[in-house]
Amino acid sequence: MLKHIHSINNPLVKQWKRLLTKKERDKSGLFLVEGFHLVEEALNQREQLLEIILSERVELPARWDIGSIPVTTITEEITNELSDTETTQGIYAVCRQEGKRTLQEAKTFLLIDAVQDPGNLGTMIRTADAAGIDAVIVGNGSVDIFNAKVVRSAQGSHFHLPLLKGNLNEWIEDLKKENIPVYGTALENAKVYTKTLPTSRFALIVGNEGKGVEKELLDKTTANLYIPIFGKSESLNVAVATGILLYYLRSV
Amino acid sequence: MLKHIHSINNPLVKQWKRLLTKKERDKSGLFLVEGFHLVEEALNQREQLLEIILSERVELPARWDIGSIPVTTITEEITNELSDTETTQGIYAVCRQEGKRTLQEAKTFLLIDAVQDPGNLGTMIRTADAAGIDAVIVGNGSVDIFNAKVVRSAQGSHFHLPLLKGNLNEWIEDLKKENIPVYGTALENAKVYTKTLPTSRFALIVGNEGKGVEKELLDKTTANLYIPIFGKSESLNVAVATGILLYYLRSV
Repeated sequence: MLKHIHSINNPLVKQWKRLLTKKERDKSGLFLVEGFHLVEEALNQREQLLEIILSERVELPARWDIGSIPVTTITEEITNELSDTETTQGIYAVCRQEGKRTLQEAKTFLLIDAVQDPGNLGTMIRTADAAGIDAVIVGNGSVDIFNAKVVRSAQGSHFHLPLLKGNLNEWIEDLKKENIPVYGTALENAKVYTKTLPTSRFALIVGNEGKGVEKELLDKTTANLYIPIFGKSESLNVAVATGILLYYLRSV
Repeated sequence: MLKHIHSINNPLVKQWKRLLTKKERDKSGLFLVEGFHLVEEALNQREQLLEIILSERVELPARWDIGSIPVTTITEEITNELSDTETTQGIYAVCRQEGKRTLQEAKTFLLIDAVQDPGNLGTMIRTADAAGIDAVIVGNGSVDIFNAKVVRSAQGSHFHLPLLKGNLNEWIEDLKKENIPVYGTALENAKVYTKTLPTSRFALIVGNEGKGVEKELLDKTTANLYIPIFGKSESLNVAVATGILLYYLRSV
């Protein structure tokens, strides 16, 4: 199954490179991951992994069980074309965005409203994974879930839990119908988060770095929570706030 | 007190630019902050603020009380030379690293061991500020506290609480002599953080993104704590972990 590509004008190279754009990712339902750690995570979630692409100067780790997954080797020049990092490890995988996980059993949700920074979104996905959250729903206006920097910051969590784009207004209504309490985060008309008891079923909404969660969403929640600021900083980083709230709500 | 500089070869410009290097910051005890928000924070901590530098296309906000602080205007070309960002706001301040805050009353400490990423270190300083921690001690092997990206990520917290470079081994010993419990963070020989009770006096040590806290330090602590991972991610981001632990330990 080993193929070698040496021309940067090969249509496959152009197709892979287009996966660095949101437009092509949306159209194809695919995304590209880069680096040994992420490709190994993709291997562990094999139904999402379509093919591996490898610089000719790089070798696959002997412990990896590649099975029938197609592997293509490429030149140094092509390797650099596909990279989103300054120093590439020279290994990529083309993956399906959707896994076969279902939401039927999901009891805990993180809803993300208009988070702009890819590092923040990736760290939030990683944090939700660590906290054992069952699904992450990303609303319109957020940076793309499958953006290369989001994927890198999430360190493989894209392969660990369902990540969906969705209309948060509709999600809040559906969750409330299921009797799952939905907690917004806000600075006004909100209660200190420790006044809410940890619970086995909940959804938490966190929002944009500057503006927070959209008022329209906050008006629909079961309750809105805030994290007190004891010092002189104006706010917490949104990924840090997400960690504090998820670890509190899921009750350690 | 208004001075204008138009030559990029002016010795003052060279001096300011050198503040972008750790070597010059260490030698001079000064650092440069960039952007309206940070310069305003410096104004609020006036004893640290030495001078303001302003692009000729930019105006000082009318509400700012500049008093006798020297203001120098500079050309667009010099403005870009001084900037560490892609799109500069064209305003800078030269500040003293040391404020006049004392540690005598300090009861809560964050000790940082060898954190490499400037965004992480800045976010951790901001998080410690939000959690009302009294002082942050940064050990050897961490990125420089006054690195431009650290300062930017901390969003002004450099002016809110004492930030010291220090030998963490000595700090642990001194804190324990004062009967302040010192908590390390570790994955092995550690207890779940919620098994420790929140307390009004404590020091928390967090460590390097990959390797965690140095073993030599962990051997000296009162106890070592860990945050359980409930999902499939390997770890939490160090700034997120810092937030979870500080907000738990200081008891909300």
